[in-house]
Amino acid sequence: MKAIIIICDGMADRPHAELGKKTPLEIAKTGNMDTLARKGETGILDPIAPGIRAGTDTSHLAILGYDPKESYTGRGPLEAAGIGLDILEGDIAIRCNFATVDDNLIVRDRRAGRINEGTEELAKAVNEISLDGADFVFKESTAHRAALVLRGSGLGCGVSESDPHTEGRKVMPITPLDGSQKSKKTARILNEFSKRSHEVLNEHPINKKRAASGKPPANMLLLRGVGEYPRLTSFEEKYKLKSGCMATTGIVKGIAKLLCMDILEPVPEYDLRIKNVVRYMDDYDFILVNIKEADEAAHDHNPGEKVEIIEKIDAAVSPLIEFSKENYVALLSDHTTPSNLGDHSGDPVPLVICGPEVRTDDITEFNERACSRGGINRIKGTDLMPILMNLMNRAEKYGA
Amino acid sequence: MKAIIIICDGMADRPHAELGKKTPLEIAKTGNMDTLARKGETGILDPIAPGIRAGTDTSHLAILGYDPKESYTGRGPLEAAGIGLDILEGDIAIRCNFATVDDNLIVRDRRAGRINEGTEELAKAVNEISLDGADFVFKESTAHRAALVLRGSGLGCGVSESDPHTEGRKVMPITPLDGSQKSKKTARILNEFSKRSHEVLNEHPINKKRAASGKPPANMLLLRGVGEYPRLTSFEEKYKLKSGCMATTGIVKGIAKLLCMDILEPVPEYDLRIKNVVRYMDDYDFILVNIKEADEAAHDHNPGEKVEIIEKIDAAVSPLIEFSKENYVALLSDHTTPSNLGDHSGDPVPLVICGPEVRTDDITEFNERACSRGGINRIKGTDLMPILMNLMNRAEKYGA
Repeated sequence: MKAIIIICDGMADRPHAELGKKTPLEIAKTGNMDTLARKGETGILDPIAPGIRAGTDTSHLAILGYDPKESYTGRGPLEAAGIGLDILEGDIAIRCNFATVDDNLIVRDRRAGRINEGTEELAKAVNEISLDGADFVFKESTAHRAALVLRGSGLGCGVSESDPHTEGRKVMPITPLDGSQKSKKTARILNEFSKRSHEVLNEHPINKKRAASGKPPANMLLLRGVGEYPRLTSFEEKYKLKSGCMATTGIVKGIAKLLCMDILEPVPEYDLRIKNVVRYMDDYDFILVNIKEADEAAHDHNPGEKVEIIEKIDAAVSPLIEFSKENYVALLSDHTTPSNLGDHSGDPVPLVICGPEVRTDDITEFNERACSRGGINRIKGTDLMPILMNLMNRAEKYGA
Repeated sequence: MKAIIIICDGMADRPHAELGKKTPLEIAKTGNMDTLARKGETGILDPIAPGIRAGTDTSHLAILGYDPKESYTGRGPLEAAGIGLDILEGDIAIRCNFATVDDNLIVRDRRAGRINEGTEELAKAVNEISLDGADFVFKESTAHRAALVLRGSGLGCGVSESDPHTEGRKVMPITPLDGSQKSKKTARILNEFSKRSHEVLNEHPINKKRAASGKPPANMLLLRGVGEYPRLTSFEEKYKLKSGCMATTGIVKGIAKLLCMDILEPVPEYDLRIKNVVRYMDDYDFILVNIKEADEAAHDHNPGEKVEIIEKIDAAVSPLIEFSKENYVALLSDHTTPSNLGDHSGDPVPLVICGPEVRTDDITEFNERACSRGGINRIKGTDLMPILMNLMNRAEKYGA
């Protein structure tokens, strides 16, 4: 037997005044998800633990069965892996933003006008710098995003960030936080990298051209999310499942790459995406799918748009009903993103598990409040994979 | 106030096609268990954690409040204690099967035709061997089962098993797994024991007689479940409860002996068994009862027989209704054993706690799905004893 986990990113919400004190999932017409709820077993899930506000990264690690307390070492390594940088044990990875600063290093735009062209060439110029004490690779990602991997002996990751996280403030010097020689070395090298990359970017023709046409130049790299490469058992070794991951988000792809899962490219249309996943299941035992868009609507404080997106997702998941006759499907949100808050919250998320031998409960709707009365009751993110392994009759016995 | 825990071994199940997608417990007429559910508070319980497939051993340890992560060191010590072998700190205990091998040590019958006579005499012959580097005691149990306790200085338990677990394969040499001198010593001694016991058994008149009458000779001991004696606080010391255990299964008796609980012999008839337990409660504060038979029907893939057994158990538990007016009763399964799977699974089990001051919920049936809506919600095996201690007003305050 096989299993699919569908994560509808940030789909869970809180009751919203504009929706008559209902959640987007309660308002949306979700016939297919409701069918899964009727045929399956429902519950609520705390991605990490009750009340803890999970990131997409920590939540996905937990849902895949990797306790973030041990597996999460910061966003840098996940981001770097997600854009295809090879990371080795001992490497330090850092998230970067192309940003705009003035002559006094005051941040004017943390995203350099959400720059979306020329970053590959800018990255090439940055990579020509050579640093004393470590090698590095720098690579652009989508828009203003980029990542940096430092490689050398005796590097530590206990350092501060250069990103002031607010415009109008000065780029911050990177300082060691833990007093170790290793972190001191990293801080020195990263400050050197900041200074030198600023010099290179400030003089780069692409930025001269941007300035001339009134666009904010990408003349600074803001560093954050510094983390050491986490040593993780591969997903296949842990579960003996041939596995893939389909996601548009770099961070989710990064997690999948660190776990040596195959990366399956999604088509833009939701419905084809899920159809493709079911087709891929001929070759895989397990696929995790992340559908990002509901989260984005909630970040934009737009509950109405979130309702529409949920209905599109619902239409797309119909192939799962057939698939779950012989195999298992878990559908859930990775965290709550209240449209009113515009950011992740720590509320639990609804969950349905559907498949041939679940103890079907009497819940007939898929949403936050209906699922809270379901047969699964309330579990944690790290419980989901053991539960699926058990249902697939693939779990090892503990004791005799 | 006093408490009884009734564990109906493997009684929980999954919805079964032959039972119209109901579980045996849902199909069975269980008027007495339903009465307990109506008068009590219900919930579901994960013996270890959600999805984890518990053995009878790890589950009973957890339900008695001993986290198996700390208390479970393998089946050997529990098995050996169960048949009355004294085990001391530092001892290594091993489960053994009387088995049949050919001249090339290929296993022909892992259970020597489920031999049921003469094993006491065979064990006596084995005990006459002397080994270099350790003393030992070997004792027969029921049918083909036996246990071995090694005692000596510097013994480790990080060794492999000689049991190939499949017929047609050769007896395996025992090898040290952790590189320690202690485990090397144990491996050497156990290989010597295997060889010497085979020589003794192969020539034994009982086996000559078996072979002559066409029965497979018990000419080899297969070793498995090697474990060090776990140092456990006695049940009485931990809870200040005078306690007993009534079980037919060696492994449950073994756990009870390791915890210094009194062993109460069950009569074969269920109904008398429970009546006797209630009578015993004049002298005890706590008794754990294990009723094995539903698990066996599920291991035999026989949901119909499981329904019948559950109804017999239900008839037997009627004295608990009266008992729970003044005292507490918890009735549950130690793990799910789906009749379709024929082995333990990691699904949660139903639980009812009945007694004078529980917060009675509105559940009126005792089964997997009804209890999932109960007031206890979803708890773990190790939560049960603290809950009972609390209800009996015997728990110590944490803080002030």
